Amino acid sequence: MYESTIQIRVRYGETDQMGYLYYGNYALYYEVGRTDAIRQLGLTYKAMEESGIALPVAECNLQYLRPAFYDELITVKTIIKELPQGAFIQFHSELYNEQNKLINKGLTTLVFFDITARKKAGIPPILQEKLAPYFSPNI
Amino acid sequence: MYESTIQIRVRYGETDQMGYLYYGNYALYYEVGRTDAIRQLGLTYKAMEESGIALPVAECNLQYLRPAFYDELITVKTIIKELPQGAFIQFHSELYNEQNKLINKGLTTLVFFDITARKKAGIPPILQEKLAPYFSPNI
Amino acid sequence: MYESTIQIRVRYGETDQMGYLYYGNYALYYEVGRTDAIRQLGLTYKAMEESGIALPVAECNLQYLRPAFYDELITVKTIIKELPQGAFIQFHSELYNEQNKLINKGLTTLVFFDITARKKAGIPPILQEKLAPYFSPNI
Amino acid sequence: MYESTIQIRVRYGETDQMGYLYYGNYALYYEVGRTDAIRQLGLTYKAMEESGIALPVAECNLQYLRPAFYDELITVKTIIKELPQGAFIQFHSELYNEQNKLINKGLTTLVFFDITARKKAGIPPILQEKLAPYFSPNI
Repeated sequence: MYESTIQIRVRYGETDQMGYLYYGNYALYYEVGRTDAIRQLGLTYKAMEESGIALPVAECNLQYLRPAFYDELITVKTIIKELPQGAFIQFHSELYNEQNKLINKGLTTLVFFDITARKKAGIPPILQEKLAPYFSPNI
Repeated sequence: MYESTIQIRVRYGETDQMGYLYYGNYALYYEVGRTDAIRQLGLTYKAMEESGIALPVAECNLQYLRPAFYDELITVKTIIKELPQGAFIQFHSELYNEQNKLINKGLTTLVFFDITARKKAGIPPILQEKLAPYFSPNI
Repeated sequence: MYESTIQIRVRYGETDQMGYLYYGNYALYYEVGRTDAIRQLGLTYKAMEESGIALPVAECNLQYLRPAFYDELITVKTIIKELPQGAFIQFHSELYNEQNKLINKGLTTLVFFDITARKKAGIPPILQEKLAPYFSPNI
Repeated sequence: MYESTIQIRVRYGETDQMGYLYYGNYALYYEVGRTDAIRQLGLTYKAMEESGIALPVAECNLQYLRPAFYDELITVKTIIKELPQGAFIQFHSELYNEQNKLINKGLTTLVFFDITARKKAGIPPILQEKLAPYFSPNI
C-alpha cells in the first residue's frame, strides 16, 4: 500500500450558496492529492504526460459525509491499495476536516493512455519501479 | 419514470490541457441537468431551497466513456427512475455528444435537508405531487 | 460595430457562500459571449485555433455593478467596437439580469498568436473578411 | 504599505486546452492571496464576514504577461498600498513563476458591505487597527 497526504485550504470561490464546498470541486481536491502522491514518489505526473502517457479518468465515485466550509484546511489522504496490473490505476481519497473528521471519501480509476498511439497502455516502467517497494510481500 | 433533456456547450475554460472537458466539470453538467429537470416539472430548485429544503449531495458516481471537447454541444439526459420514498432522491445522468454517442453516465444521490431544523427531511409535498403522475401504475 | 447576444443561466456551482455568482466566474461568461460572437459571424473560434491561431488573453477589466444569483438568466452582450488593426482584438462585454439591469461590464483584450511560430500574428484573413462589413464607412 | 506572499501550485483542472492556466482562474489566485494577506495580519476574512461585513468585488483588472503551466508553483504577492478611507479597499496582486518572472498583475477593488443593513460600510475597526502600523508616517 502506498499513501500520501497533502493539505488544501477551501477557497471562497469553491463554496456555493449553501455555504458548502461545492460537490463538484472535490474532484479537483482528489486530483491535487494524486498529483502530490506521484510527486512524493519522486516522479511528476507532468513528466509522465510529457513522456507520452496521459491518465484520463475512467470512473470516479464520491461519498459526501460532512460538508466542508470556506477557509477550512482539509487533509487529503491519497492511497494506492494495489499495484496496477493492466491499463488501470486506482486512487482512494479520504478527506478530513480540521477536527479530523472524515468528510468525504472516493475512488478514482484512471487509464494509462498512450498519447501517440491513441490507445491504452500499461503502467510506465518508472512508475512501476517506484511503487513496487510499497507492495513487496515483505512490507 | 421521469426524464428531461437539456443541451450544454463545452466552454474553453472547462477543458484541460489534454484538450478534454475536465473530469471534475461533469458534476456541474449533472447539476444543470437536475435544475432543469425540476424546472420542466413546473417547479424550481431555487424556490424549493427558499422554502427551506436544500439538497446537498450524498453520493455521486461518474463513468467516463468518451472525451468531450471544446465547443461541442452535449445533450444531458436526466432521469428519475423511482419516486423518492425517504430522505433521498436519485438522479441518473446520461451525456451524449453531437454524434449521439454516450460519453458519460452517472448517478447522484441527494438528501432532502431541512435548513431550519438542520436535519434530513422527506420529499417536499409539491415535488411529490408533480412527480407522482410519472410513476403511476397506469403509465 | 459588431454585436451579438447570448443567454447563460447561473449554475449553483458558480455561486459562492455570499449567494452571488462568484466574481471569478464572469470571465467564463465573457468567454461564452466571445465564442458565440464568432460563431454568429459564421466562423468558430475552435476552427481558428485548429488553423494555427490561438487567442490568449492579454488583459481583462471587469466592473461589478450588481450581483447575479443562482438560476438567473443572464444576457451577455458582446461588442467589437473597432476592427482589429494589429495583433490585438478587443471585446466589450455587458451583462444584464432578468430585470434588464446592467449588472457587469468588461473589456477583454486578446492576442492573435501563431501557435507554430510561437509569436504574435495579425488577424486571420477570414475573420477580417467576416468583420469588415460591420465597420464599413457606409454602415 | 502592507504586503504578503503565498504559493499556489497550478492544478490540472485549472489549465485549458492551450495548456495554460485558464485566464478566468487568476481571480481565484488573487482571492487566495487576499485571504492569506488578512490571515497574516492576525485576522480572518471568514470571521470578518461572520461579524457582518462582506467584501463583494467592485472591480478587477488583470494583466496577463506570461502563461502559467500545470504543476508550476506560483508565488502570489498581495499588496495594500493605501490604508482604506471610505467604503473601498484595494489589493494589488503580482504573480511570479518558478523562474521568478512576473507573469500576471492585477488590481482588485472590494466594498465593505454591511450584510444586515444591506449597504456600504467603512473598514471594520479591527482591520483598521491591524493595518494602521504599516501606514504610519514613521515607517
